[in-house]
Amino acid sequence: MRTRNKPWAKDRLAQYPQYAIASPEECRGKWASIFGNDHPIHIEVGTGKGSFITGMAKAHPDINYIGIELSESVIVTALDRIIEAELPNVKVMNVDANDLEQFFAKSEVERVYLNFSDPWPKTRHEKRRLTFKSFLKIYENILRDNGEIHFKTDNQGLFEYSLTSLSQYGMTLLYVSLDLHKSGYEGNIMTEYEKKFSEKGSRIYRLEAKYNA
Amino acid sequence: MRTRNKPWAKDRLAQYPQYAIASPEECRGKWASIFGNDHPIHIEVGTGKGSFITGMAKAHPDINYIGIELSESVIVTALDRIIEAELPNVKVMNVDANDLEQFFAKSEVERVYLNFSDPWPKTRHEKRRLTFKSFLKIYENILRDNGEIHFKTDNQGLFEYSLTSLSQYGMTLLYVSLDLHKSGYEGNIMTEYEKKFSEKGSRIYRLEAKYNA
Ligand SMILES: C[S@@+](CC[C@H](N)C(=O)[O-])C[C@H]1O[C@@H](n2cnc3c(N)ncnc32)[C@H](O)[C@@H]1O
Ligand SMILES: C[S@@+](CC[C@H](N)C(=O)[O-])C[C@H]1O[C@@H](n2cnc3c(N)ncnc32)[C@H](O)[C@@H]1O
Repeated sequence: MRTRNKPWAKDRLAQYPQYAIASPEECRGKWASIFGNDHPIHIEVGTGKGSFITGMAKAHPDINYIGIELSESVIVTALDRIIEAELPNVKVMNVDANDLEQFFAKSEVERVYLNFSDPWPKTRHEKRRLTFKSFLKIYENILRDNGEIHFKTDNQGLFEYSLTSLSQYGMTLLYVSLDLHKSGYEGNIMTEYEKKFSEKGSRIYRLEAKYNA
Repeated sequence: MRTRNKPWAKDRLAQYPQYAIASPEECRGKWASIFGNDHPIHIEVGTGKGSFITGMAKAHPDINYIGIELSESVIVTALDRIIEAELPNVKVMNVDANDLEQFFAKSEVERVYLNFSDPWPKTRHEKRRLTFKSFLKIYENILRDNGEIHFKTDNQGLFEYSLTSLSQYGMTLLYVSLDLHKSGYEGNIMTEYEKKFSEKGSRIYRLEAKYNA
C-alpha cells in the first residue's frame, strides 16, 4: 500500500496498547484471556487501513478479530478506525505474516482472511505471495482443524494461482465467486482496495477454502 | 445444441462403423485392439459437432480420441469432419455419458475433456451437470490412476460450481485460467461453442484437474 511515511506512527501505536498489541510474542496461547472471552478468533493478514476488520468486528460482535499489518504507516489508520468505533473485539498487530507462529499457538485461530494481497506477478517472486505453500503451512500451524482461508482480490493472476496453490496443498474449495459484487453474496464488507478497484470497474474474485484435518 | 432433427442420421452413422462405433458395449476392455495400438485414450463428453476432437486428433497423432455425444443429429456432423480428414485416431459414439462404464473398463481412459457442457443453472438440476459428483464417479471408474479432467466453458456459474465440485470430490486443480484466450496457453483447439461465444466477447474459463490415486 503506497502511503506517506509517518515517523510518529510507532508512538501512536504505543499509546493504545488495548488496540495495538505491544508485545505479540507474549500473547501466544493467551488470546482468550486477552479478549476476556473464548469467542472464535479470525485474523486478517495484510489488513491495510482496517476498513474490513473494523466493519467485520461491528457486524459480528461474537467473533474476535486481529489485523496483521507489516507497515506501521498504514496500520495507524486502522488504529484510528478502531479508536473511533470503540470496539472491544478487534485488535491490530504491526508484525510480519512470516512470524505468525510466534504469536499464535496451534488451534488458536479459526479463520484467516486475505484481502487484495500483493500479487507478486513475476514467477521468481512466487514465494512472496501470501497463498504460497510456505504461508499455507504457517496458517495451518495456527488454525484449528478444518480452519478456513477466505480470500478476495481483483487480481486475476493471483486468483488463478491461489486456486491451484490451495488445491495442491490439499485444501478443499468450499465456495468460489468470479464476480463477487454480482453474486448475491450477502454481508460483504469492502476493503479499501476493493472499493477503489470495483469503482474502476474491476471484477472482484472470492474464495473460501478449508484445511482437511 | 440446437440442431434440426435429421431422420437419416442413424443410417449415416451405421455406414461408417470404422468411425462411428456401432456396438460400444462390445468395445469394453478392447480399445487398444480396436485402435490397433496402445496409445493413450482421451475422450470428450458432449462432443457436439466435433471441431475439437478432430482438431486434437490432427495435432496429436499419438493419442486416440473418442467423442461421446447423445444427439445423433449433432454427431453426424462430427462424423463428416472425421470422414473428410481420414483420421485413424478418432472415433465417435452416439451414447449417453451416464453409461460410460458400460463402454470402458477401469483404467482404459487417460483423460476426459468436457467442453461447454450444458450449464443447467437451476439448483434442482445440479445432478445433470457433467461435473456433478455422480459424473465425477463415473469418470473415475474408467480413468487410470491420476487421470485428468480438462474442462472449458464460457459459463461463469458452471465454472464456479465445477471448481468446488471437483475440489470437494477430492480432485486436485493443476491449472486454472480465467481468460483462456488472453492467457498465452498454446495449442488451444477451439470448439464450436468456443468460437461462437468468444466472437461475442465472452471470456473463456479453463481448468485441468487430476484424480488422486
Ligand atoms: C495491497 S494491500 C491491501 C490492503 C487491504 N487488505 C485492502 O484490501 O485494502 C496489501 C497489504 O499487505 C501488507 N503486507 C504485505 N506483506 C505482508 C506480510 N508479510 N505481513 C503483514 N502484512 C503484509 C502490506 O503492507 C499492505 O498493506
Ligand atoms: C452445449 S453443447 C457443446 C458442444 C461442444 N462440446 C462445443 O463446445 O461446441 C453440449 C453437448 O453435450 C451433449 N450432451 C449433453 N448431455 C450429454 C450426455 N449425458 N451424454 C453425451 N452427450 C451429452 C449435448 O447433446 C450437446 O451436444
